[in-house]
Amino acid sequence: MATGWGSLLQDEQQLEELARQAVDRALAEGVLLRTSQEPSSSDVSFILMHRIPSVNGSQFSFPLLMAILVVSYAPFTLFPSLVPSALLEQAYAVQMDFNLLVDAVSQNAAFLEQTLSSTIKRDNFTAHLFDIHKQVLKEGIAQTVFLGLNRSDYMFQRNADGSAALKQIEINTISASFGGLASRTPAVHRHVLNVLGKTKEAAKILSNNPSKGLAMGIAKAWELYGSANARVLLIAQEKERNIFDQRAIENELLARNIHVIRRKFEDVSEKGSLDQDRRLFMDDQEVAVVYFRDGYMPSHYSLQNWGARLLLERSCAVKCPDIATQLAGTKKVQQELSRSGMLEVLLPGQPEAVARLRATFAGLYSLDMAGKDTCDEQARGTSASNQSHRAC
Amino acid sequence: MATGWGSLLQDEQQLEELARQAVDRALAEGVLLRTSQEPSSSDVSFILMHRIPSVNGSQFSFPLLMAILVVSYAPFTLFPSLVPSALLEQAYAVQMDFNLLVDAVSQNAAFLEQTLSSTIKRDNFTAHLFDIHKQVLKEGIAQTVFLGLNRSDYMFQRNADGSAALKQIEINTISASFGGLASRTPAVHRHVLNVLGKTKEAAKILSNNPSKGLAMGIAKAWELYGSANARVLLIAQEKERNIFDQRAIENELLARNIHVIRRKFEDVSEKGSLDQDRRLFMDDQEVAVVYFRDGYMPSHYSLQNWGARLLLERSCAVKCPDIATQLAGTKKVQQELSRSGMLEVLLPGQPEAVARLRATFAGLYSLDMAGKDTCDEQARGTSASNQSHRAC
Repeated sequence: MATGWGSLLQDEQQLEELARQAVDRALAEGVLLRTSQEPSSSDVSFILMHRIPSVNGSQFSFPLLMAILVVSYAPFTLFPSLVPSALLEQAYAVQMDFNLLVDAVSQNAAFLEQTLSSTIKRDNFTAHLFDIHKQVLKEGIAQTVFLGLNRSDYMFQRNADGSAALKQIEINTISASFGGLASRTPAVHRHVLNVLGKTKEAAKILSNNPSKGLAMGIAKAWELYGSANARVLLIAQEKERNIFDQRAIENELLARNIHVIRRKFEDVSEKGSLDQDRRLFMDDQEVAVVYFRDGYMPSHYSLQNWGARLLLERSCAVKCPDIATQLAGTKKVQQELSRSGMLEVLLPGQPEAVARLRATFAGLYSLDMAGKDTCDEQARGTSASNQSHRAC
Repeated sequence: MATGWGSLLQDEQQLEELARQAVDRALAEGVLLRTSQEPSSSDVSFILMHRIPSVNGSQFSFPLLMAILVVSYAPFTLFPSLVPSALLEQAYAVQMDFNLLVDAVSQNAAFLEQTLSSTIKRDNFTAHLFDIHKQVLKEGIAQTVFLGLNRSDYMFQRNADGSAALKQIEINTISASFGGLASRTPAVHRHVLNVLGKTKEAAKILSNNPSKGLAMGIAKAWELYGSANARVLLIAQEKERNIFDQRAIENELLARNIHVIRRKFEDVSEKGSLDQDRRLFMDDQEVAVVYFRDGYMPSHYSLQNWGARLLLERSCAVKCPDIATQLAGTKKVQQELSRSGMLEVLLPGQPEAVARLRATFAGLYSLDMAGKDTCDEQARGTSASNQSHRAC
């Protein structure tokens, strides 16, 4: 039954049949994207009301849902990827360090201000975010609970001696996505291997349920907020192709009887408000946690949306993330963190965490030509030969 | 949190939001149909081969699947339907009787011939089926194991006294569908009720996993055939919108390490064969079970396809169903079964089963105007006033 890998990759017909099976399994498992033609969730003009006589004689109507709201599958590899277990273990081990580092950065206003000073001068988006950050600090933080759902991205580097190394590409501190869909891909890859009769290999594919983990984080924040009827407010885009990734987390929360309301920034402008204790209300419902799946790119903000973001940041709802944590995820901060001695300053007395973090750093190179002075300043004190690999 | 039903059905905005949530959950749970625009599974022109350097230095390629193969959700009611538990229990209790009745009919060649004699004269489709049935009987049945996966459809009748009664519409003995999708709808309806805060009602929705039950039937037939490497041959249509319903059963079989190959009648014509023991082979793979999800309507058969059907019926693979079982599911047989005294003939010495079956019969009326002689014959011995409600 089992097929050799070599012959398989040569057999186009078998690959196509396998792809058909994989695609159908991905669709059935919910590894979905809305199609770009019809991504809006507002296309719900499909409720047909039927009146039929009921068993006890009265007429009743029931909504029957029929429409063509089309979806397709999210891109995925036909085969699972081999990951050296040592690198996987390393990634697990360093994640808590990264989370604590992001937290330390977000709480360190002086570091953020100094690091982003040159960026703010030239980048309106970061400047806007920083403005809100400053305003909130000035008014006084209304909520001392912060929730970060961070995704650290890696690639494997082949060292000169042929060994493999884990190198971080970036860390996403706002709207980190694909946890939901990733929860469903192990079933797809197991299916592909089982179809090939490779049952032993299929059994080796690790289960992965990030949507549950992410939901548990939000549930914890909701619990700490401490109001049984308060909702989670998910800030979403109108045309969101990746909605099923988000729905997976919503479903996990609903299973814990925590209700999520999806709203746009525009809705917050129109129907969001703070009471005298800066408690946040949307459509008269109290909000315990604001979960951003929008607001991470300049194009997401109109002037009205910036106003909505400020309102949310000022509130005593737990933000996921708060604006300081979003700023801690900027490339400029990542670059600064790789500067010699910087981790030691941010994580004092934690040499082991610092070593684990630094082992995953790759070289970072600035495109900040206009910011040459900053770069030169950083360069001081390092040997010229090392400079091209330094973080500036 | 909980909402009243009355106010809910009046609140169009809330209904639409609920419908959005229900649709997304249905999509994520795999309650899917291919869209009519693009139903073909052969649209797999989407394998992009990527070459990337691997960790150990060699180049390797991997298929990455990206395409717009669009699907939508199968129509479903927004709310679950209330079913009186007595009627549900009744339906469960009578199912084994129906299965044994279908089996008894399919094994009773004289009854089939007599019952279908008038139909065969006027209906080419039934005549073709019956022809194959006769040929197979003449040659001698190669396989004594028969698999029936029957779906009995009911509606509730309101009696004059206001009570509810279970009335059978029909029984499907070939390609009975929606067991796969129905396995996933309880999660959708629970979701809808949970969103409304009706958690107690949600918990009352019974789980239902017909795809597992159907697969267990096929697995049993596969096991009785007794060849570890033999496959299940699923006869499918080229453009099958309801493929996810079928895939659910395929997946259950694969989980038992039973491999399914999907083929069209045309493929059987071209690449199917019998050996001297009438063992069936497709593409050189032995077939243990033939599972028909095609071949139940006249339009499914070209002359070539009739040839393929004959080949399959002659084989010693277990058929699901064999052609006699398909004939046992015809409307004409259903009509004949409702004739006074007929059940007693077919199920001798089983008065309790007969009573359970007859309790679900509704009136059946023939459109067989040309077959007036048969109808008249049946009518004899009944009072004129009763005739219009009789089965002829």
